[in-house]
Amino acid sequence: MNTVVRPFPGQGAFNRKARIKLADRMFADIRKMSEDGPGVSRDSYGPGEQAAIEYCAELARTEDLAVRFDEAANLIIELPGKEPDAPYIVCGSHLDSVPQGGNFDGAAGVIAGLIALIRMKRAGIVPPRTTRVMALRGEESAWFGLCYLGSSALFGQLAKDDLARKHRVTGKTLGAYMADAGAEIGRIENGERLLDPAGVAAYIELHIEQGPVMVARNLPVAIVTGLRGNIRHADIVCTGEAGHAGAVPRWLRHDAVMATADLLNRLDKHWQALLERGLDLVVTTGMMSTNADDHAMSRIPGECQFCLEIRSQSIDTLEAFYQLVRSEADNISRERGVSFGFDRRSLSNPAVMDGRWIRHLLDTCAKLDVVADAIPSGAGHDAAVFANGYIPSAMIFIRNEHGSHNPREAMELDDFMYGTDVLFTALLDPPV
Amino acid sequence: MNTVVRPFPGQGAFNRKARIKLADRMFADIRKMSEDGPGVSRDSYGPGEQAAIEYCAELARTEDLAVRFDEAANLIIELPGKEPDAPYIVCGSHLDSVPQGGNFDGAAGVIAGLIALIRMKRAGIVPPRTTRVMALRGEESAWFGLCYLGSSALFGQLAKDDLARKHRVTGKTLGAYMADAGAEIGRIENGERLLDPAGVAAYIELHIEQGPVMVARNLPVAIVTGLRGNIRHADIVCTGEAGHAGAVPRWLRHDAVMATADLLNRLDKHWQALLERGLDLVVTTGMMSTNADDHAMSRIPGECQFCLEIRSQSIDTLEAFYQLVRSEADNISRERGVSFGFDRRSLSNPAVMDGRWIRHLLDTCAKLDVVADAIPSGAGHDAAVFANGYIPSAMIFIRNEHGSHNPREAMELDDFMYGTDVLFTALLDPPV
Repeated sequence: MNTVVRPFPGQGAFNRKARIKLADRMFADIRKMSEDGPGVSRDSYGPGEQAAIEYCAELARTEDLAVRFDEAANLIIELPGKEPDAPYIVCGSHLDSVPQGGNFDGAAGVIAGLIALIRMKRAGIVPPRTTRVMALRGEESAWFGLCYLGSSALFGQLAKDDLARKHRVTGKTLGAYMADAGAEIGRIENGERLLDPAGVAAYIELHIEQGPVMVARNLPVAIVTGLRGNIRHADIVCTGEAGHAGAVPRWLRHDAVMATADLLNRLDKHWQALLERGLDLVVTTGMMSTNADDHAMSRIPGECQFCLEIRSQSIDTLEAFYQLVRSEADNISRERGVSFGFDRRSLSNPAVMDGRWIRHLLDTCAKLDVVADAIPSGAGHDAAVFANGYIPSAMIFIRNEHGSHNPREAMELDDFMYGTDVLFTALLDPPV
Repeated sequence: MNTVVRPFPGQGAFNRKARIKLADRMFADIRKMSEDGPGVSRDSYGPGEQAAIEYCAELARTEDLAVRFDEAANLIIELPGKEPDAPYIVCGSHLDSVPQGGNFDGAAGVIAGLIALIRMKRAGIVPPRTTRVMALRGEESAWFGLCYLGSSALFGQLAKDDLARKHRVTGKTLGAYMADAGAEIGRIENGERLLDPAGVAAYIELHIEQGPVMVARNLPVAIVTGLRGNIRHADIVCTGEAGHAGAVPRWLRHDAVMATADLLNRLDKHWQALLERGLDLVVTTGMMSTNADDHAMSRIPGECQFCLEIRSQSIDTLEAFYQLVRSEADNISRERGVSFGFDRRSLSNPAVMDGRWIRHLLDTCAKLDVVADAIPSGAGHDAAVFANGYIPSAMIFIRNEHGSHNPREAMELDDFMYGTDVLFTALLDPPV
């Protein structure tokens, strides 16, 4: 891990073949620097992420692109546009990874932006808007239990408590890591806004899809309509009454497992009905368990514990479905003589992508004969921070097999190049 | 525990008041001998059970009743009938308890039988049939992981492997405990039949109800129609596919929890429908869990493990419902792209109680103005061993709150006396 790899110097010709060669080389170099067992580990604000950032910075410098770091130690690579004082466009993504994760989640976006900028630079193209590639720090929550660190810091959204969070392995605080990376801790923990939204024309992020939709639908590229927000309960407990499994008839039972199964089944059916009406929604109970202290094969379960996550691009759908959850829980409580205890719910707002940019990116795909469609993003991204910070945002998804956050993630370089070409082309004719 | 308590000697008068006084005293003495925390512990074939057996034997001797022990060390207290060579009637139950259990589960049946015999003896009544009260050893599976030890031994159903089972606390083998109690280990482990079914006219057992039906239905006494058998799977695993909870839409999911909830819900609905058609059935999933190694709130669960127990008085209902389980599991596998892996199923046959005795006991209740009805037993009892050994068997249930196998079990002495009077009266006029 963290082998020093020097990027090769730029050459004049930068045709498709050369671009594929550079992309392939960059992915390989960055992987080599961060290999960890079967996957890669690039820890947020730590040596793993730092090595990848320095590699990209060095490559940008060899291409005569301006390189600097902002107050949160995010990497900025800039190509000035025709109107240097007009708001600029950010092509952002991240270079950190989860522990033993895949090589493409995050890095693809930074590499795509860099290739687009190098292509402009080498061809002598001055883009309409100043264009910045940003490697945003600490997108993954795996290291400090909090995601979007670099972008949140820019929007004044990191609190002192957050900086006190400890690294999952070393125990050293996030604040100490950020300071080591050169971030201005004082301004960040004061919640100072370090980025002026009025100065940013748009935030565009290319990223691998973390779900299986594009593989299933045969889409090499997709344009993201919105990022799902979520409502979560980490701990719901259905309490019934334990009893002898043989001796208590159905009418006298208060079976916590049957009640929970009933609830989940009703939610599943409502979900299906709402999908048929065109709403965006996913519902998951990822953890579930009877009480190991007293459960038994011949004992009616008196307790069943589970979590619930609802995600949607629409806050209205989230809230409406949540009411359905509570209402069905009440119905089942009455019908079955059980009770459902809900812990504090957490809400994360959905982020809507910019309509003009969605159309522009879909039009660009059509112009380049790239098969694409508009799909939602179920996972969160830095784009959500920018969008909810009132900056028009958009995302280009690249087809990817086996999900992400694991070494088996598999993006084809051909698909990546289609997406990078769409990004390059779209930047030459932005809808702003 | 195991305090030596000597029963008081018999007196001439044995009216209702004296019988209540004796019953109360016996329950109190036996409890005192086996107190353990909030409950009682009378270990099968161990000192706990032995003390209670010796107490009952001593009391029987003071009443001039014949006392002996059979080849499995079961206690036999006998009152000869009018035809000493005709098949005899057994009033059986057990004196062992689960660890920290209740005082009434088992002991009630032995004490009721003993009071009925003392009442005959003191009144100079010679019953039509020789009548034996039996305290059958080791009815509870809690100590050696196997139930009905004393009765199974009589029917040649204990194997060498069973005798090698170890006591849950001491680790000493069941065979060693049985030998210490005076059982003939050689004949038992050879599977020799130690009791001739042709010599037994009937087996009658009085026992507390372990479910809540009689409390809910206001029945002080009930006559058991049959003992439910069961089909069990200790370990069923639903395997789907894990994935990002936000990024995988419903149509591409293989959610193991939703699939399991669907299955349990379908079984619950079938169960309800079959009850409405008058079938006897209970269905329980007492344990259920996602895989703690890799489950998470934001991860579609790829695995859900659960057990299943089906009980019915009818082997046909058991088998038919089991086919329904497998068929619905197949349907859901196809519909949801999951699979259900079933471990080896275990089957315990139902035991049907004797129709003539059921009618006779209900008639006796009516004659004595005791409110009663016929209900099934969900729990298993020694009566099942005798019934499946081709001996006409019957059971009298006594109302009891809070179930059994716990210190909170609560039988009213009045209800117990009603049941004991029914037993006494029925023995004077047996339908054989």
